[in-house]
Amino acid sequence: MLDQLRTHIGKIVPLSDDEFRLISSFFTHKKYKKHQFLIQEGEFAIYNYFVLKGLLKLVYTDDTGKEHIVGFAMEDWWETDFSAFYLQTRSTMSLIAVEDADVLCISLENYRKLCAALPKIEHFFLEKAYMGFISAQQRIISTMTTGIKERYEQLLQKYPSLIQRVPKTLLAAYLGVSRETLSRLSQ
Amino acid sequence: MLDQLRTHIGKIVPLSDDEFRLISSFFTHKKYKKHQFLIQEGEFAIYNYFVLKGLLKLVYTDDTGKEHIVGFAMEDWWETDFSAFYLQTRSTMSLIAVEDADVLCISLENYRKLCAALPKIEHFFLEKAYMGFISAQQRIISTMTTGIKERYEQLLQKYPSLIQRVPKTLLAAYLGVSRETLSRLSQ
Repeated sequence: MLDQLRTHIGKIVPLSDDEFRLISSFFTHKKYKKHQFLIQEGEFAIYNYFVLKGLLKLVYTDDTGKEHIVGFAMEDWWETDFSAFYLQTRSTMSLIAVEDADVLCISLENYRKLCAALPKIEHFFLEKAYMGFISAQQRIISTMTTGIKERYEQLLQKYPSLIQRVPKTLLAAYLGVSRETLSRLSQ
Repeated sequence: MLDQLRTHIGKIVPLSDDEFRLISSFFTHKKYKKHQFLIQEGEFAIYNYFVLKGLLKLVYTDDTGKEHIVGFAMEDWWETDFSAFYLQTRSTMSLIAVEDADVLCISLENYRKLCAALPKIEHFFLEKAYMGFISAQQRIISTMTTGIKERYEQLLQKYPSLIQRVPKTLLAAYLGVSRETLSRLSQ
């Protein structure tokens, strides 16, 4: 189980056994059932989560009660309300299990202790942060410039295994279209 | 001039004189006139830019020739087509001076050398990357959930000094509305 985290980090920063033991001492393991909340809007976002197994959705609910999907996370992805986690503010989003999920959790305090104890881990988090930023920027450009059909096709191409697992209603809420529009696109 | 970079980095990572001399050896100084291109779509994005003075726009041009503003950068901001810079691919955007600009440039090769020579600088870049990611994610949420009027007001509140400097036509291209719509909003 922890091997999965080691392999994941090891792709970017090679680790000795001692270094990985140190890293793993800062994480705790939690399990969530489908529909359970990992983060609840209005509460503090205590953890950043590394998904061992399962599927999560990061949801923003607007004033009218409509759900917007900000992101999904499955095996080997990191997810949290990052702004709330990192800036220690109350969460504006909820993180919810779409499938039963196994996750490793790290608190901001432990994250900081880990970086202080093993500075080279910052290289790993930097790489992840860059990739997250690139993805977010590509999504902004895609939303500004591309029709829904192309965006659906880009998603299919970029994340084929994710798209197969995500219920169509959630995919529609991610793309910002109705369930009916999505059905027409995916025919 | 280099003092500006030192103050900027020093807010996140304290630096000795020697350390800052090392950092500054990896940057070159360039000047651009209004309308000049720092990065041209289709070319490689050689540098990441730290703005000493001036105003830049990061532009995506769609298939119909319409310009979309992905971002602005002014004093003490970093800007590049980050995906093209970091992944060493051809740029899908252009970076253009909106006002005469003074910038410090660092290439990816020099960025890597700098991180190898002074690992603690990664902590600085990590902080910047997190803030960039948080901003991008907030923009995604705002675009999904908020009307144009509210988005304009959020911008005014978040970046008052930027909004005063940016020509209204560019602000409209950033918000994705016509110049006329923006005029009505800003009355």
